[in-house]
Amino acid sequence: MINKLVKKIEQLSAPIVVGLDPTLDFVPQHILQRAYEEKGENLTGAAEAIWQFNKGIIDATYDLIPAVKPQIAMYEQFGVEGLKAFQKTVEYCKKKDLLVIGDIKRGDIGSTSAAYATGHLGKVTIGGKDYRGFDEDFVTLNPYMGSDAIKPFMEVCKEEKKGLFILVKTSNPSSGEFQDQLIDGRPLYELVGSKVAQWGEEHMGESYSYVGAVVGATYPEMGKVLRALMPKAYILVPGYGAQGGKAEDLAAYFNKDGLGAIVNSSRGIIAAYKSKGYEKFGPEAYADASRQAVLDMREDLKKAWLHADK
Amino acid sequence: MINKLVKKIEQLSAPIVVGLDPTLDFVPQHILQRAYEEKGENLTGAAEAIWQFNKGIIDATYDLIPAVKPQIAMYEQFGVEGLKAFQKTVEYCKKKDLLVIGDIKRGDIGSTSAAYATGHLGKVTIGGKDYRGFDEDFVTLNPYMGSDAIKPFMEVCKEEKKGLFILVKTSNPSSGEFQDQLIDGRPLYELVGSKVAQWGEEHMGESYSYVGAVVGATYPEMGKVLRALMPKAYILVPGYGAQGGKAEDLAAYFNKDGLGAIVNSSRGIIAAYKSKGYEKFGPEAYADASRQAVLDMREDLKKAWLHADK
Repeated sequence: MINKLVKKIEQLSAPIVVGLDPTLDFVPQHILQRAYEEKGENLTGAAEAIWQFNKGIIDATYDLIPAVKPQIAMYEQFGVEGLKAFQKTVEYCKKKDLLVIGDIKRGDIGSTSAAYATGHLGKVTIGGKDYRGFDEDFVTLNPYMGSDAIKPFMEVCKEEKKGLFILVKTSNPSSGEFQDQLIDGRPLYELVGSKVAQWGEEHMGESYSYVGAVVGATYPEMGKVLRALMPKAYILVPGYGAQGGKAEDLAAYFNKDGLGAIVNSSRGIIAAYKSKGYEKFGPEAYADASRQAVLDMREDLKKAWLHADK
Repeated sequence: MINKLVKKIEQLSAPIVVGLDPTLDFVPQHILQRAYEEKGENLTGAAEAIWQFNKGIIDATYDLIPAVKPQIAMYEQFGVEGLKAFQKTVEYCKKKDLLVIGDIKRGDIGSTSAAYATGHLGKVTIGGKDYRGFDEDFVTLNPYMGSDAIKPFMEVCKEEKKGLFILVKTSNPSSGEFQDQLIDGRPLYELVGSKVAQWGEEHMGESYSYVGAVVGATYPEMGKVLRALMPKAYILVPGYGAQGGKAEDLAAYFNKDGLGAIVNSSRGIIAAYKSKGYEKFGPEAYADASRQAVLDMREDLKKAWLHADK
């Protein structure tokens, strides 16, 4: 899957992942209304609205982008019904040949991590037949519990040729509280980064590892250090756009081959019709606004990845 | 809920939480077979088997214990069907007046953590009415992303009078890779522990805080330090029994009032019928074996919490 991701990024000249993180506020009135009429004004209706909203965006952008990153929390907030919408979204994206990064940030001890790995990347055998739960192509993980939390995912990844993005330095303002603390003169995120590089060596694709990292766009200086520390890790970069990360800051995240990073935008794409410059599309054409936002992001990012030979 | 937890622990003389972490291996043949016959030999049947297995254990133990801790990974591995079993389990436990600690170990940036908090502890408003997703009483959280990840949960907790257990020092062998690293001469877990104490002051119950901590039974020396560092935090202690933690090591986790810690056992209780000393019950009476294992654990723990005035 990492090889496919790299190839798609090159073909499309788009190191872009669209964050499918819908909230009910983002869903245009006409979709909400239809979903509530069909399924009831309740959790089922809300989940239906979110799925229909996603479908519109996927249909309008799938030919431009290599991957999507549904944030499972936005679905989990509606309980089981929301998770059905998550599952439908994953399935539909895969049908459209999009790679799916499940933004799940899980991580637990051995057997529990193995269960998460089964549910999100692998398969479970019941009565001699294989069944799959959510079946994403990649997932994000939290490293706080150490190798025990990561290894069971790696085993499933090796079997399934799937991949991971491990939190190293996150984009949020308080990420430094623990991640920036100095250990023998180096911040914790560097220690985590060197572990990611080490884990990554155990599961290499053609040019990049199946084990990638998450490094927020909001900390470009740290991005530069981490890029050098994990040369074979694809870096998933959240925080572009709405959170304040700018394209010119992103050059540091790319390797000299113009590869090595994939930049996420969520709100900036999926709620484009609500933001400055895209209001003209209006809520009925919200998906067209998302398409335009992807095209604009692709242009904007060229500044970063075409000039990454720093 | 923290006040109710403390009261129930005192009334029952049982600082015990039963980890409802079923795997198909644990489920006796007669339950599996009936579930497969009724719902099919597939994800739906497997989830039904797990729910029926849980129900048996809950019915056999609910009068002895204050709380249960379903590990959501064990359900998530079966996808949406598994999560329906999780939901049923949570609902049923609450009907039996058990407190439910959702072992979800979530944690993400602001709005995403808010969505998780909504789905697991809070409510979502649709068309003027409130709906609830999974609706546990407590959840476990991962602190790696800092305060941004915790605060949205605390806001929902204040509104709902619910609580949190934040990972400080986990019970797994590799927990030290990051958690034990020294920062200004003190390990990272102490820094996290002092943050937990600080967050906890913002949401106090009668004698303990709504913000608790997870500290593994396998590291009693660290437990002692953390107990002193977070005097008002209830400590959820995993790793007793199957993972190697012993009752005599647990005294360090309790305060002088004999309170302040609640010890989890998963396999040791729910799969008791498969372990030494309980085989005589046999698979048909697996739930009776679990009841006996709870009674034995209660006796064993008395060594720890009756003599906690260290």
